[in-house]
Amino acid sequence: MRRALSSLRSPTELDVQHFASIVGGANVLTAAADLEPYNTDWMRKYVGNSQLAVRPGSTAEVSRVLAHCHAERIGVVPQGGNTGLVGGSVPVADEVVLSLGRMDRVLSVDEDSGHLVCEAGCVLEALQEHVAARGHTMPLDLGAKGSCQIGGNIATNAGGLRFLRYGSLHGSVLGLEAVLADGTVLDGLTALRKDNTGYDVKQLFIGSEGTLGVVTACALALPRAPASVHLALLGADSYAALLRTFGVARRRLAEVLSAAEFLDRASLELACEKLDGVRDPLPDTKCAQYMLVEVSGSDASHDEAKLSAFVDEAMESGDVVDGTIAQDGAQSAALWRLREGITEALGRTGRVYKYDVSLPLAQLYDLVEETRARMAPHGALVSGFGHLGDGNLHLNVCTPGAFDADAAVAAAIEPWVFEYIAERRGSISAEHGVGVMKPHVLHLSKRPPVIGVMHALKRLLDPHGILNPGKVLPPPPEEERPWRTAS
Amino acid sequence: MRRALSSLRSPTELDVQHFASIVGGANVLTAAADLEPYNTDWMRKYVGNSQLAVRPGSTAEVSRVLAHCHAERIGVVPQGGNTGLVGGSVPVADEVVLSLGRMDRVLSVDEDSGHLVCEAGCVLEALQEHVAARGHTMPLDLGAKGSCQIGGNIATNAGGLRFLRYGSLHGSVLGLEAVLADGTVLDGLTALRKDNTGYDVKQLFIGSEGTLGVVTACALALPRAPASVHLALLGADSYAALLRTFGVARRRLAEVLSAAEFLDRASLELACEKLDGVRDPLPDTKCAQYMLVEVSGSDASHDEAKLSAFVDEAMESGDVVDGTIAQDGAQSAALWRLREGITEALGRTGRVYKYDVSLPLAQLYDLVEETRARMAPHGALVSGFGHLGDGNLHLNVCTPGAFDADAAVAAAIEPWVFEYIAERRGSISAEHGVGVMKPHVLHLSKRPPVIGVMHALKRLLDPHGILNPGKVLPPPPEEERPWRTAS
Repeated sequence: MRRALSSLRSPTELDVQHFASIVGGANVLTAAADLEPYNTDWMRKYVGNSQLAVRPGSTAEVSRVLAHCHAERIGVVPQGGNTGLVGGSVPVADEVVLSLGRMDRVLSVDEDSGHLVCEAGCVLEALQEHVAARGHTMPLDLGAKGSCQIGGNIATNAGGLRFLRYGSLHGSVLGLEAVLADGTVLDGLTALRKDNTGYDVKQLFIGSEGTLGVVTACALALPRAPASVHLALLGADSYAALLRTFGVARRRLAEVLSAAEFLDRASLELACEKLDGVRDPLPDTKCAQYMLVEVSGSDASHDEAKLSAFVDEAMESGDVVDGTIAQDGAQSAALWRLREGITEALGRTGRVYKYDVSLPLAQLYDLVEETRARMAPHGALVSGFGHLGDGNLHLNVCTPGAFDADAAVAAAIEPWVFEYIAERRGSISAEHGVGVMKPHVLHLSKRPPVIGVMHALKRLLDPHGILNPGKVLPPPPEEERPWRTAS
Repeated sequence: MRRALSSLRSPTELDVQHFASIVGGANVLTAAADLEPYNTDWMRKYVGNSQLAVRPGSTAEVSRVLAHCHAERIGVVPQGGNTGLVGGSVPVADEVVLSLGRMDRVLSVDEDSGHLVCEAGCVLEALQEHVAARGHTMPLDLGAKGSCQIGGNIATNAGGLRFLRYGSLHGSVLGLEAVLADGTVLDGLTALRKDNTGYDVKQLFIGSEGTLGVVTACALALPRAPASVHLALLGADSYAALLRTFGVARRRLAEVLSAAEFLDRASLELACEKLDGVRDPLPDTKCAQYMLVEVSGSDASHDEAKLSAFVDEAMESGDVVDGTIAQDGAQSAALWRLREGITEALGRTGRVYKYDVSLPLAQLYDLVEETRARMAPHGALVSGFGHLGDGNLHLNVCTPGAFDADAAVAAAIEPWVFEYIAERRGSISAEHGVGVMKPHVLHLSKRPPVIGVMHALKRLLDPHGILNPGKVLPPPPEEERPWRTAS
């Protein structure tokens, strides 16, 4: 981290004046109180020391700010809603914070073909409301929707709750406008569904966490808004039974399946214990595993019929031992609250070591059980939940003590958990990204030649390393082309 | 093209011996008769002069072949099924053809999460049969499926008939193994749905037409196979009416809509006139425009009900004036034959100038009408059809004469048609790619800074320019970092 910043200089009063001449004095923040929210991530775990936040109002202004930082070797942290979970959007030292929040215009919605063109600073929930009024829905949804911005969603390749249905942003982003470190504007803001004219350069910026360029605007494919949504909670005695049930869901619900989330008993009990108004919806059976199945489609009666047929088959097979179908919006909200409240419940329980993991689906829950066995001597509570349909587990190890007092606990978890994932070719960060938290373990998910290409791309597009320094990549190796293995 | 090859040398007898030591003598072809299919594209429009085709049997062999070519500055043309439409898979001079066809093993199918892992040389139709037997379907389908290989599909970012439903390969490709020009193997062959660990390097190779690396294996997300498929042909009096009908289809068919193709009267008449057994399915009305609407889903009765309701609404609105729903497989096949046979019918009519275009949906058919007016003095027949749901028009200008005799016709079409598309920010190649046919007009779809980044990526990953020389990119500019616009 230090090394990445060593070639950068701190901004001076002259730089402040220059930025003010670009974005206007009111949009250059230098007071400590004003800067506090820009310097602190929402978990309050990462705190930067920036003396300067710049709030551009247009792509041209972003370009001029970056061109200056590039020429002057000043570090820049692009910041959207600052809702990330890996410290990717706050400074590691005194970089300039480039806040995109003022660029929040919807440029167009095309109801014929279904697409949206907007600036990067639009808040996800505001976009959802805008397109819902026009019969469409955003292809992504996540807990942070009230604060997160679409540019940040794209820069971090956000996953979330609709991934199972609408897929990755690598498919949904039709066009992108991004500004390179040197201020060059890459205008690829077309909304064409198909365009095979040369390399798909925009893909580079999706998931690069602001280290290769700054996303300033985008065109997104919009699905039609579903006419009906239904939700069921099913209980099973084992993960194996849950997995078989997911197979039945894929077959019977197919095109209307819109979410397949899971939580284990420990997660459910935590939520019921720590959250006001959350109760066990299936109190008689105390199952080991639960699955939340959502269907959404264009015809309520068809969707209900499919969901009923699925639940019937799952229960007749014996794999599902209890279940409930929400009868109204309030019941749906209560079931979602149970699933989405787990993170909050964990936070009220003690210190939490959080892991966001992809593993082959058949092995996904083994990691929770092995972690539980491993952490039992430490009195830790281990909870597993997540996006079953995506093979994405949120593993949480919760201890009553402070992080500092938990050296033995920490040593028992890491690096074991990362190595466990690496041995099975899983991902050490399924959807949260790398940020400042995980560059040191990147090599456990990606092979050295692939990381070598990442370093080469970074040097190519940001030769002075001004963009989000200290994030995503570990310190680079010395070789000129580090992926080279052949003679 | 010459320029791109000028730094490369021709392979010698010593190289042949070296390649034979890697892949075995039987897999190095040097006889002219053996080489003919490798040198000629399937339209027989592009003919190379390679003296040497190498057929590796493994990724390690691909790596060793490329490392040699890189060290020795020998050009290489990666070749899959050789079914491309822009001359991308045949040599422009005497490059070595690297044929992936022997690497045709299916490595695994995971029925729980729905994914396939296989080598690049697997033929698409064989994969479709393999996964269909396991309850799944391939996320892409195209006319060339009997010959095209999945590695070529990925390298060219193939679109096709299921794009509307299952989206782009940028979303469906979960993992990729590719070999760089210098022989470095990039092993990213995981099948995880979500993996946000660093830059998504695999995206670079999707659609790069073999100029940045050779795809050797892939992991693909598989949808469940639909339980039922239904097809309707609808006729309308205008493109505007057709477009409104597509809007009704998006709303009423939503999650079960699996194809929305269109053809104009000229295309239908051509198919009926030139193809045996093809007749006008709606002979009483002689509509100006036709739409083929396919629905597929997990419940036949639901799908039928949705399709009927859609057709009823479309006819009641007056936008659809005639229509038919296929009652069995034979009727479906006949309707698809009408749509898919247009290319063949055109080929029997005369010389065809083919354009594969994306435009904003509302303006898509204007291009056909303007072309028709423009070409009327030349006695040319102009036909428009394509993938309405993707905003993808196949525009065809058909003249009775030979290409050579058509200088006036050619001059009337180009560059006008490309400039027309550029003015509306469309794509001059929606799905066919650039190959050797369109590098000279790439700048009409992509802005100079974006093309500058493409050149930089090419230099980074293939510094000697050995991979598919003369394809995709126009001759590079002289500047070191040609995208730079800021000071």
